[in-house]
Amino acid sequence: MTREKLIEQIKKKQSFLCIGLDVDLNKIPNHLLETEDPIFEFNKAIIDATHQYVAAYKPNTAFYEAYGLKGWQSLEKTIQYLNQNYPEVFTIADAKRGDIGNTSAMYAKAFFEDLAFDAVTVAPYMGKDSVEPFLEFKDKFTILLALTSNEGAYDFQTLETENKPLYKQVLETSKNWENAQRLMYVVGATKAEYFKEIRKIVPDSFLLVPGVGAQGGSLQEVCQYGLNKDVGLLINSSRGIIYASHEKDFAEKAAIEARFLKEEMQKILQSNF
Amino acid sequence: MTREKLIEQIKKKQSFLCIGLDVDLNKIPNHLLETEDPIFEFNKAIIDATHQYVAAYKPNTAFYEAYGLKGWQSLEKTIQYLNQNYPEVFTIADAKRGDIGNTSAMYAKAFFEDLAFDAVTVAPYMGKDSVEPFLEFKDKFTILLALTSNEGAYDFQTLETENKPLYKQVLETSKNWENAQRLMYVVGATKAEYFKEIRKIVPDSFLLVPGVGAQGGSLQEVCQYGLNKDVGLLINSSRGIIYASHEKDFAEKAAIEARFLKEEMQKILQSNF
Repeated sequence: MTREKLIEQIKKKQSFLCIGLDVDLNKIPNHLLETEDPIFEFNKAIIDATHQYVAAYKPNTAFYEAYGLKGWQSLEKTIQYLNQNYPEVFTIADAKRGDIGNTSAMYAKAFFEDLAFDAVTVAPYMGKDSVEPFLEFKDKFTILLALTSNEGAYDFQTLETENKPLYKQVLETSKNWENAQRLMYVVGATKAEYFKEIRKIVPDSFLLVPGVGAQGGSLQEVCQYGLNKDVGLLINSSRGIIYASHEKDFAEKAAIEARFLKEEMQKILQSNF
Repeated sequence: MTREKLIEQIKKKQSFLCIGLDVDLNKIPNHLLETEDPIFEFNKAIIDATHQYVAAYKPNTAFYEAYGLKGWQSLEKTIQYLNQNYPEVFTIADAKRGDIGNTSAMYAKAFFEDLAFDAVTVAPYMGKDSVEPFLEFKDKFTILLALTSNEGAYDFQTLETENKPLYKQVLETSKNWENAQRLMYVVGATKAEYFKEIRKIVPDSFLLVPGVGAQGGSLQEVCQYGLNKDVGLLINSSRGIIYASHEKDFAEKAAIEARFLKEEMQKILQSNF
């Protein structure tokens, strides 16, 4: 998907919501466990019920890998279902990969070509040659971890380096990599005050923002500092939406939660654009 | 596997060689492509021919994921084959994972329980709560990226932080995490002079060392500074061994290369222990 199409879709739907498809067999309604592929059936129902409210879906690959081959099959079916039925929706493989050059190239091929995701999350620790192979793919996006929403973010990401905290150095350095226009960044909502500084370094980039809701981040605060002229934000919510109910009405309840967030976003967009 | 068993095996075999099973269908002998599972057939032949010379095998999961479901099946079959036939050999999933707590727990379960690897490589960027879920598993090891062997290692890993370069801070900080005795570290051989400093911080830990051979690192230099009282090193070689020949004699040729490295290691062990 092109950047223009992503922006167009966000403006048309009046939503920059991303739903995290982090499916745990222990948390989905019991009646689905009797189906042949409970994870896919769950995702399909959630997607059908929520697609009109969202800009993106983001399966976290860990949840699928945890179920081995069957899990990978569910992931494949989910992305195929999305691409066939809702091609306007942006898709993110939350994989947090990153390896030496030729190995990163294998990952990029797996997520961008074989699975046909629009974007993949990548860890920055191994530097330029671990990320650039992902950036080679046209109309695909590499979402680099900058400042994450978990407690451990303060272990290394906020360490002062020569001139600035590490996460800012990651933003600065990565801007000079080849095809850097295909970079987006993960920035946790739990640190809304950081967005102001981050926007000075990457004014135009899209930011994928976890941590609104369950992890305590505020949508209003993030938008106050994080919005740019193209919206420039994808706000992720996972558990708050997909586990809104554990009963047969799970998809309906998920849709209610997604619509609620979408309407919040619509208000924000209307007062800013 | 316990640390004691790993050390015992290294001393018995007089080898601390790890073979990287980074299998690329474009590089394996043509006659294997006609079999039902070329990747597994390749691995099986390499393992059967080399196991007496090695302490560990390390499939890089990217190479398997790149082939989708079939690739994951090959990975499963490979680890099962190793565990059934050569349970004394240490097995490492080179996955470079790392995510927020509950997600890391899913990865840990996938690699330690479902696939039953002895160890998995993990990226440090997201900090303590992204790594500790891996460390909870008894007799399993988490190999944290410290200083990698690629060029991009100089982008962030060697950045000066408040007191020391980032990779040293990763070593220092991680020593205080719960179950830190189950940590090992990735340290690239291309920076042999760094081992002296690293051993001051983690004198007892095992170090997984890529970059000997193809990437230019020297076995002698690494051992000079990196060996500890328990050997404490696993030296990885991938391409130099598994692609020693692209013909029908690939396994024999791989065995010759592996034996050569094993004999180098034996000499080093004999003059140090």
